Amino acid sequence: MKNNFKFQNPTQLIFGKGTIAHLAQELPKNEKILVTYGGGSVKQNGVYEQVCRALQGFNYIEFWGIEPNPTVETLRKAIALGKQEKITYILAVGGGSVIDGTKLISAAIPYDGDAWDLVLKPSKIGKMVPFASVLTLPATGSEMNCGAVISNAEKKEKYAFYSSFPQFSILDPTVTFSLPDFQIACGIADTFIHVLEQYLTVTDESPLMDRWSEGIMQTLIELAPKIKADKTNYEMMAEFMLCATMALNGFTAMGVTEDWATHLIGHEITALHGITHGQTLAIVLQGTMQVMREQKKAKLLQFGERVFNILEGTEEQRIDKTIDACEQFFCAIGLVTKLHELNIGEETINTIKERFLSRGTRLGERGNIDGYVAEEILKKCL
Amino acid sequence: MKNNFKFQNPTQLIFGKGTIAHLAQELPKNEKILVTYGGGSVKQNGVYEQVCRALQGFNYIEFWGIEPNPTVETLRKAIALGKQEKITYILAVGGGSVIDGTKLISAAIPYDGDAWDLVLKPSKIGKMVPFASVLTLPATGSEMNCGAVISNAEKKEKYAFYSSFPQFSILDPTVTFSLPDFQIACGIADTFIHVLEQYLTVTDESPLMDRWSEGIMQTLIELAPKIKADKTNYEMMAEFMLCATMALNGFTAMGVTEDWATHLIGHEITALHGITHGQTLAIVLQGTMQVMREQKKAKLLQFGERVFNILEGTEEQRIDKTIDACEQFFCAIGLVTKLHELNIGEETINTIKERFLSRGTRLGERGNIDGYVAEEILKKCL
Repeated sequence: MKNNFKFQNPTQLIFGKGTIAHLAQELPKNEKILVTYGGGSVKQNGVYEQVCRALQGFNYIEFWGIEPNPTVETLRKAIALGKQEKITYILAVGGGSVIDGTKLISAAIPYDGDAWDLVLKPSKIGKMVPFASVLTLPATGSEMNCGAVISNAEKKEKYAFYSSFPQFSILDPTVTFSLPDFQIACGIADTFIHVLEQYLTVTDESPLMDRWSEGIMQTLIELAPKIKADKTNYEMMAEFMLCATMALNGFTAMGVTEDWATHLIGHEITALHGITHGQTLAIVLQGTMQVMREQKKAKLLQFGERVFNILEGTEEQRIDKTIDACEQFFCAIGLVTKLHELNIGEETINTIKERFLSRGTRLGERGNIDGYVAEEILKKCL
Repeated sequence: MKNNFKFQNPTQLIFGKGTIAHLAQELPKNEKILVTYGGGSVKQNGVYEQVCRALQGFNYIEFWGIEPNPTVETLRKAIALGKQEKITYILAVGGGSVIDGTKLISAAIPYDGDAWDLVLKPSKIGKMVPFASVLTLPATGSEMNCGAVISNAEKKEKYAFYSSFPQFSILDPTVTFSLPDFQIACGIADTFIHVLEQYLTVTDESPLMDRWSEGIMQTLIELAPKIKADKTNYEMMAEFMLCATMALNGFTAMGVTEDWATHLIGHEITALHGITHGQTLAIVLQGTMQVMREQKKAKLLQFGERVFNILEGTEEQRIDKTIDACEQFFCAIGLVTKLHELNIGEETINTIKERFLSRGTRLGERGNIDGYVAEEILKKCL
């Protein structure tokens, strides 16, 4: 371990079959609770019913309609309701978007100004309303970290935002059985690439963190075809749910250099075209690996060797095989890996380049991915 | 992931060179602090000086003399001092023994009866005094868990005890450079076997937890010879320190079946002969693997294959090679692997058998290791 670091993650995980009922014991008594939901799929899959049953006797109100890629426009309504009803605790019930949105609600209820201020200037965050979650979609890791991504529909912008951790998160894998195949595929890609953003930078910073990252990716490669064959395979869906949480809770990030260029370029595609996050990543990753292959050379070789068992050929050939293996993995789980398959072309690339140039964006582990390099990356993804 | 589980670990890790100075920012102000120490090695290696410098301006007193395998007899003195001085916060500065002892002090200061009651009946633990730690010896993982092992010198007994987590723990790898080689070897063995106690039970409970356990063991095997060659190799000592913490903080134990027979048999040897904990484990492990080889067969094969790359031979041959590989690993780091090398023989084995029989002890993942099986295990270690 080369680098100094600090680590803390206080979230309690409550994992397994039938755990939604634990809400009755885990939620604090004598609070005024806001329960936040997405678009209503929880009413089809039995989650809503289980939550209502557990919440009997609690003093709570509901807020519905936090959308995928939650917008500040929607969240402002929840914040206004929270202020009006003097909410003292929040329970997010949904996927990463509902939990992300809840993080902004938690910070903005006690804040006097507009919520978007807090996204742009996190130093303005003061007191926060404590919150917990019931997770319904494994993907973002939001259930066990303090990060969120918030969109501004009016400005077509999407930014990362950091507040506090859920006090506890309930993960019942059975609730994922009814997810659409595409959502599961996006969740697997998101999880895989969360790991890579913390791994595919430099070598020899920490052998243990490397092995833990590789362990998550190996597990995902092993379980993905089993889930594709049968998404009601409890053990595999549970393992995927565990991997998604462990991929972005800091456990593999201690003292290591991180990248996040693929994510931040992907966010622009989502902001401009509404493409699901995991799908954007599965496309952009190939371009990032191609364009940054010299800088990431040693780690790309290690990644290929340990995760895909690529041992033959010259270094350049092995890197090509590794990039291909990633692409094949995403195709096999049902995602596309090229922009043209989504009818996205040069115009979008140009818009993203101009946005990055105008904002002075510098991404990646060395801060050397600007608008021009992002353009180069995206052109590899056409 | 087959099984339901709960997980939470709130300890903040502050890791790296020069981090003892962070005490000045991290310790709460306006508390009456008890600083607990071991035998005084911190006065030779500069730790004491750094702690004193960071504590300038704090209201604190010191307690010295928590011994290896901390005894309730010593801890009672610290508890009496803590009660008398109305201590409201504790800082443990030392190895696992000092931190373990501090956990009992933390629980016993607010308790009216005798501290040994709390070891025997943890349900009697109520309010606890919050505490933090500065770790000087990587081994037990006590810096990031809520467990402790407390001895009773009068009764020659040694029991596990569970209280609360350190609020934060400072891990500066440079402080380990002055450790005796034997202590480092025992720390490596302790770490390795902590992982095995959580791993070497049944297969297919969680592919991810398996890989994370294997990752710690692979890392220890890789770093041990480098540390043996040069114990001032910062990166390797830091990696070892990280491994020791990660081996017993719950990160590899989510939803998995645990064993702990080797530890509990080892504790008896320590209680009877004062042998260092890690050394007892390096001996007992071979016996546990031999006697329980049928029950642990599938996991032993996976362990051999993934950690020691043992792929050739019949199943029984591969298990023999795996047990040999462990023994060679412990010998290579400088430990002995047989009881006779410590002049321990049949008499001790008989005492341990009788103790287990009289207590009705049933150890291991299936609770089928009683006094007779423990005797069989220990006879393999003669």
